[in-house]
Amino acid sequence: MQEESEIRILGIDPGTNILGYSIIECTGKNISILTMDVLVLGQKEEMNTKMKKLFDKIVNITDIYKPDILAIEAPFFGKNVQSMLKLGRAQGLCIAAAFSRSVPFVEYSPRKIKQSITGNGAASKEQVANMLKRILDFDEIPQYLDATDSLAVAVCHFYQQSSPCPKTTEETKKQRKTKSWSSFISQNPNRVRQ
Amino acid sequence: MQEESEIRILGIDPGTNILGYSIIECTGKNISILTMDVLVLGQKEEMNTKMKKLFDKIVNITDIYKPDILAIEAPFFGKNVQSMLKLGRAQGLCIAAAFSRSVPFVEYSPRKIKQSITGNGAASKEQVANMLKRILDFDEIPQYLDATDSLAVAVCHFYQQSSPCPKTTEETKKQRKTKSWSSFISQNPNRVRQ
Repeated sequence: MQEESEIRILGIDPGTNILGYSIIECTGKNISILTMDVLVLGQKEEMNTKMKKLFDKIVNITDIYKPDILAIEAPFFGKNVQSMLKLGRAQGLCIAAAFSRSVPFVEYSPRKIKQSITGNGAASKEQVANMLKRILDFDEIPQYLDATDSLAVAVCHFYQQSSPCPKTTEETKKQRKTKSWSSFISQNPNRVRQ
Repeated sequence: MQEESEIRILGIDPGTNILGYSIIECTGKNISILTMDVLVLGQKEEMNTKMKKLFDKIVNITDIYKPDILAIEAPFFGKNVQSMLKLGRAQGLCIAAAFSRSVPFVEYSPRKIKQSITGNGAASKEQVANMLKRILDFDEIPQYLDATDSLAVAVCHFYQQSSPCPKTTEETKKQRKTKSWSSFISQNPNRVRQ
């Protein structure tokens, strides 16, 4: 009998004010949530302090849960240069924190994540959270949806890497066409509400 | 007799295509260049590979030279959201690489650095390089001015922290008024070309 593969995925929705993080353990087709939370950084805190807290948090989670890979939500477009600089910093910091513990990373665009979870790349955060609650059967949706967003990217990576044609880290750039609802439903019967 | 203080500063001009880095050792008022170079990352390389190489390089330099602090050039504005995201990632990655070796960081705007070295916040990269060559007496200006730019931010931090009123890491935001040439000359007689 073939042994079921096991993988631990650290999912991160990075931000310099609120950072969402989750760890899932996937055995065969089963997904367990080991942790799902947010790190709230005061808007008035100095960037220097924020960056140190953020780095320490990721390193701490990595040391405790020893994930095999970091899956990070990585928007490629944003409102303005200031917000993108801050977002880029948070992304770089999280990725490097994982590197410091020899954990590689993959990145997914928000659209790709939403599509992977709900079948709709334009789904709202609430729709993503509700679908995750249904799939993973957790008690209640957290106060900050950055937490469920981090869970979404981890689960998205699990779906991608367990699909017949796993995508590379570059897939977010190459993914252009939206799958139709009918193809999503036929490929994901377990994610259709009965 | 009071012992002269010694500090090693890692200066970084971050970028996802070319990263400039320098290490200076400052004893009293003397500055020695321990290294000054660039890491050239191919434009066609995957972002994932680039980020790993960049992280490994900073960690490697830090392990070899054991700097006390990282001084990083940190523009707050840029051309477009895409370039700012990449720049933010490079900044975050360098800062986290330093954090992974318990090295704190300070950041300076390009304008502040140029002003600190040449007395003119709008100086060109060539003017900055030429002034550094004169002050630090090195043989020739490197091919990539990202190298001298990284030296500039290290020297800028040394000037800031050895001034009577050292600035905090937030000084780049608060620094609004440009000093006059006359005040710069009176405060920096050694940096005036005879």
